[in-house]
Amino acid sequence: MSKIAIVIFDKFTDVDLWLMWDLLNRVRVADWSVKILGEKESHVSATGISIQTHGRVEEANDADAVLFVSGQGTRDRIADENWLAKFNLNSEKQFVGSICSGSLILAALGLLEDVTATTYPTSKTALESFGVEIVEKPFVAHGNVATAGGCLAQQYLIGWIIENLADKSWSDLILKSIQPIGEGLFFSDAENLTKLYAPVVKRQTV
Amino acid sequence: MSKIAIVIFDKFTDVDLWLMWDLLNRVRVADWSVKILGEKESHVSATGISIQTHGRVEEANDADAVLFVSGQGTRDRIADENWLAKFNLNSEKQFVGSICSGSLILAALGLLEDVTATTYPTSKTALESFGVEIVEKPFVAHGNVATAGGCLAQQYLIGWIIENLADKSWSDLILKSIQPIGEGLFFSDAENLTKLYAPVVKRQTV
Repeated sequence: MSKIAIVIFDKFTDVDLWLMWDLLNRVRVADWSVKILGEKESHVSATGISIQTHGRVEEANDADAVLFVSGQGTRDRIADENWLAKFNLNSEKQFVGSICSGSLILAALGLLEDVTATTYPTSKTALESFGVEIVEKPFVAHGNVATAGGCLAQQYLIGWIIENLADKSWSDLILKSIQPIGEGLFFSDAENLTKLYAPVVKRQTV
Repeated sequence: MSKIAIVIFDKFTDVDLWLMWDLLNRVRVADWSVKILGEKESHVSATGISIQTHGRVEEANDADAVLFVSGQGTRDRIADENWLAKFNLNSEKQFVGSICSGSLILAALGLLEDVTATTYPTSKTALESFGVEIVEKPFVAHGNVATAGGCLAQQYLIGWIIENLADKSWSDLILKSIQPIGEGLFFSDAENLTKLYAPVVKRQTV
């Protein structure tokens, strides 16, 4: 059983939820669960799109992987002690990751102490204020905690999650499946891609 | 005034809506409108996410640009004569584009006659059945009609739309804004990126 939680909030960056959501849902292995969690029944994105959540943020404490999205809303979240207190994450047992300014939440939860991290250019100063040493890389992982910066760096973050919770063959196929035609994805991949639409099977290899 | 319509339907591929939606909403010029259109008040994605539409598909006939998303649902759409008959697109006056299997809808609407096109590997055979000559490229444009293949090829499609309806400086900045840190987007871009969060201004240059 692999339980993955994506935590959202009001004013989240749309693509930073949906790219990871879509990729994680392409894994066709048994007992693979992906949920969008929030503190309300629905949250409104930065562009005004209302999205229903699948559960409350407290469920993240019981997940195998917890991913934080980004957006202007992260500034309100890191200032909300009641919201932060709902989390009791354990990076010894859980994978925890963020995209762009989601790194501010990881820092506010004390998960980036004494490690390097990355973030979005416009949230670099805010992350530095937590004492985090920032590196100009798309993806930085230390043990079970990882940060990614720049929307499309979700590919590194989600590849890392899938490789750890499923296996590298799934990660490779899923990341390939979204590449532009002729630039990583080819018409000759058609048969292989059908595995992403197949019924879920018990064995965990592609 | 620039009116952009994104046409969705049941069983659409999540990221093929949200990447283009998010990118198009980063343009901060006056009278720039992006709407998600459908034949119902809401549609359900391939992964089960319910999304409210902003209007009916007939509004696409009056838009400056019309973009078709992809997904398993395209097979039902191209078999639904009533749905196809709602469209009266004019590629002399409108930009029309598709991502992945959205190309099947362009073909069914007669917009790919005597031109080359691209699509997703798993929809190549179906597109060929319309007599379309397919090329293994991420983006193919002929006049005002363009097809893109592979989810991330939305970058070419949306860049083309923004360059034509706003200008190249907006297209360049917006495409840069989603690149991975250190691989196209850098911390030194922070100030430039704030233009994407600024209030809408009348002039159309960055």
